[in-house]
Amino acid sequence: MKNADKVKVIPLGGLGEIGKNMTAIEYQNEIVVIDCGIAFPDEDMYGVDLVIPDITYLINNKDKVKGIFITHGHEDHIGSLPYILKQLNVPVYGTKLTLGLIENKLKEENMVSDCTLNCVKAGETVTIENLKVEFIRCTHSIADSCCLAIHTPVGVILHTGDFKIDYTPIDGLVMDLERISSLGKSGVLLLLADSTNVERQGHTISEKAIGETLDRIFLGAEGRVIVATFASNIHRMQQIINASIKYGRKVAFSGRSMENISQVAMELGYLHISDGQIICVDEIKNYPNEQITIITTGSQGEPMAALARISFSTHKKIKIEPKDLFIISASPIPGNEKLISRVINELFKKDAKVIYDDLEEVHVSGHAYQEELKLIHTLVHPKFFMPVHGEYRHLKHHAALAQKMGMKDENIFTLETGQVLEVSEDEASISGSVPTGSVYVDGLGVGDVGNIVLRDRKYLAEDGMLTVVVTLERESYSILAGPDIITRGFVYAKESEELINEIKAIVRRELDNCLDNRIIEWYILKTNMKKAVERFVYENTKRRPIILPIIMEI
Amino acid sequence: MKNADKVKVIPLGGLGEIGKNMTAIEYQNEIVVIDCGIAFPDEDMYGVDLVIPDITYLINNKDKVKGIFITHGHEDHIGSLPYILKQLNVPVYGTKLTLGLIENKLKEENMVSDCTLNCVKAGETVTIENLKVEFIRCTHSIADSCCLAIHTPVGVILHTGDFKIDYTPIDGLVMDLERISSLGKSGVLLLLADSTNVERQGHTISEKAIGETLDRIFLGAEGRVIVATFASNIHRMQQIINASIKYGRKVAFSGRSMENISQVAMELGYLHISDGQIICVDEIKNYPNEQITIITTGSQGEPMAALARISFSTHKKIKIEPKDLFIISASPIPGNEKLISRVINELFKKDAKVIYDDLEEVHVSGHAYQEELKLIHTLVHPKFFMPVHGEYRHLKHHAALAQKMGMKDENIFTLETGQVLEVSEDEASISGSVPTGSVYVDGLGVGDVGNIVLRDRKYLAEDGMLTVVVTLERESYSILAGPDIITRGFVYAKESEELINEIKAIVRRELDNCLDNRIIEWYILKTNMKKAVERFVYENTKRRPIILPIIMEI
Repeated sequence: MKNADKVKVIPLGGLGEIGKNMTAIEYQNEIVVIDCGIAFPDEDMYGVDLVIPDITYLINNKDKVKGIFITHGHEDHIGSLPYILKQLNVPVYGTKLTLGLIENKLKEENMVSDCTLNCVKAGETVTIENLKVEFIRCTHSIADSCCLAIHTPVGVILHTGDFKIDYTPIDGLVMDLERISSLGKSGVLLLLADSTNVERQGHTISEKAIGETLDRIFLGAEGRVIVATFASNIHRMQQIINASIKYGRKVAFSGRSMENISQVAMELGYLHISDGQIICVDEIKNYPNEQITIITTGSQGEPMAALARISFSTHKKIKIEPKDLFIISASPIPGNEKLISRVINELFKKDAKVIYDDLEEVHVSGHAYQEELKLIHTLVHPKFFMPVHGEYRHLKHHAALAQKMGMKDENIFTLETGQVLEVSEDEASISGSVPTGSVYVDGLGVGDVGNIVLRDRKYLAEDGMLTVVVTLERESYSILAGPDIITRGFVYAKESEELINEIKAIVRRELDNCLDNRIIEWYILKTNMKKAVERFVYENTKRRPIILPIIMEI
Repeated sequence: MKNADKVKVIPLGGLGEIGKNMTAIEYQNEIVVIDCGIAFPDEDMYGVDLVIPDITYLINNKDKVKGIFITHGHEDHIGSLPYILKQLNVPVYGTKLTLGLIENKLKEENMVSDCTLNCVKAGETVTIENLKVEFIRCTHSIADSCCLAIHTPVGVILHTGDFKIDYTPIDGLVMDLERISSLGKSGVLLLLADSTNVERQGHTISEKAIGETLDRIFLGAEGRVIVATFASNIHRMQQIINASIKYGRKVAFSGRSMENISQVAMELGYLHISDGQIICVDEIKNYPNEQITIITTGSQGEPMAALARISFSTHKKIKIEPKDLFIISASPIPGNEKLISRVINELFKKDAKVIYDDLEEVHVSGHAYQEELKLIHTLVHPKFFMPVHGEYRHLKHHAALAQKMGMKDENIFTLETGQVLEVSEDEASISGSVPTGSVYVDGLGVGDVGNIVLRDRKYLAEDGMLTVVVTLERESYSILAGPDIITRGFVYAKESEELINEIKAIVRRELDNCLDNRIIEWYILKTNMKKAVERFVYENTKRRPIILPIIMEI
């Protein structure tokens, strides 16, 4: 009864949000997981370093999970592995560069020896039992990216991963459209496709175009060239290296992830540069400026990354020099606009030249635009379609695009993270949901910061805090010490002495009132103190600091 | 000896930053001030509502200040008036609509009767004594905008204010290029020109183009049309009204500033709509959906504005209904991208249609692009040039543009806020600086939140706080109560009981250590406690909450 067979597709992250991409595909007693990414915190997730997916569902089905299959080596696809593998140590599959980057991550956590990393080449298929996972080469802003075709007894599920269609990729390895087309011909049950750039018309520009711009810029550069870009964009790195070599420049890598990833990419043969062309940052001073290129992290303006430190003169080894030319070869990820703008302004103030995307074409996107998506839909013409990787509006627009291409509305499923799509040969439907969500990583803590803590941080951030502390003697119903007021982030203490004294007076009045009536229950005392202070402070300042009443009792 | 005469130009805000535009022009015993704006706080200015310029220099030269001349009615040009006029009550000059908006602001602060507002028509000149201020019509994203020509005995200073060159403005009142040209012909000493869009090539699109897009969108709308835009963009409002009337829709205004400003604009004759066409939000339900347009605030995704409240179903009077069509007729101000994206996603989730700038041309900029700037430079061909209104990179690019147009580098002055440009008939130079900066408005407090408070708020936001409180008896060197630990925004208290207990133990050990050695100086006790807790917490959590040691003494 093959027809009764069903496969479940469960997005555990990446739908209705940017990042923490993770999808489980479940058939009977087998689950394969696609990707394991992190998301970066929103601005209201105060103090949170990273966000990882909640994998309760996988933990509850531990025995079924056969492996995690990684489409490519970007953080939003591999970044959660060090956390997730600690809870669920299953084999990881990926292409060579992807695994190199994962290994690098796991090394930092001393986890390499405990994890099973399996290298798969594009074109190869990993057979679990009933499920088979085929790696199909695609093009993206990182080398060695793949789409995954999951062959199930119910039919083929094609997950594009992140992709663009670059007909002239730097490494010459074009997307395997032939295989995708042949899968389409024999019938694809369900397509999951990248929605990031669905709002953009036309076709992405080839990475190669950037090479031409860089060449022109390098030609005119009189001093050092300092290029900030994403550390994982090895093709970009290669093009910067090519331009450098052409114009007689040595290349130095600056910033931890840039150094690490370039090292991995060189070792694995993805980045081509002879030893004599690379120098370390300490050697820069041994060469004239016009013979130096520095490739650096910080293209998002991150305050602690190398570029920001160079611009604000806090970098220990790289100081701005006359005729320095900076290239920001990246576009700001939404939310980072102001950070990168601040760095650019600072560079201009120090009289450096700066070239960025608003001025010259020094960056291209790695995600398919509308015409590329249409090509994939045309080649695959799946029975069912589920847009993935994007905010809700992107998913919705991608669904609309599929509909315009002729798909029936009832065959398109715009899910949110955690919803379960059950697919049989003839039918698909949303059949409920599994527990999912965001787990916050803050320092060493994973999941110990939740909504209450974040709410408190928000209030603290807005108006600071005000502690009222008093020592009481229970027997005599009397105040032994205090009330004292300590504030942080509320007002200048010195200039607000009067305000603080008034608050003290109010607290004392409230306390006296209670104690005179022989009330010494902490709860009542604290509530009364808090309310009185809150009211007074708000009336006088229109601020709502967190009020923390503390009673010490003797 | 006219040649020895000098005039000082002192930007008190708006250079090297977006917002709080304010420039003082000083000749002997006269100062005229141009504009008096606010800036919106950066994301690291936790809890700050507004930023206003520091006017210490004007206060110190109180007797010289003859008036504040306003170019147009945007917040970044008028928003500081309620604060500044309290410190420096001088006459304010502006065009009718500008004054209407200012009056509206002052009313809210009960300040109208104390202030002198003088209405000036475009084309008119206000004579102080030696200084004369001429209002010259320009076009911008708010009606009744002007450039200002300050006629001084040394020469003419032309300040463009914010402008674009719209050859087909909605009100038919084109920019007075004739007057600007004739000033240029007779010789302009110094040009101060808007730099906001200097990085954009070409020419801005006319506001009228939006009308055509709106018309097309309204034609196809089947339910209500809800348009979010800037409340001050009265031309946009007019075009929305025109499309509404054409397609038989009544118009309701939603959001406080939208209601206020539309009211002012109608009263003053800047917004044309017959009484029967306007309804209030409560009357919406009396009409079929296809006969309703709502013009609302919240185009930046501000969480408390009407649009966000509608989208998250927290608006009391406007609920999303089937076939609702939302138009976000604005582009996000840098920093607001995520906020507006959140609102758009929410609207899509609720099955509304949403049109925004990425999809259709529903917004145009109000600031001149490169070709418009070139026209102004060509017409004015000033002796000296100072780029204004923009981040440092914009000023720098504007300086480069002027240079490309043939100006000598030594005649271009890229200043920062607070620097003084001294100009004589033949020479100009930066002659020092005056005290300036940002004054933070937080609730009712103006200037009582500074860098220390903000630094604390930042730490509180990142990792929360941890209070250690203990009551000691001085005589006996003994602990009477505590140590108690109270945290906020640090960790889930319940799940971290062990951690908290360990911290208590550490504090007790430190205290015992001190007290055993007969040390009871608060400073030492507190420092030791703080350091020990800080170290322990960081090692165990990699977090740095603010540690607040409190000692009560009996």
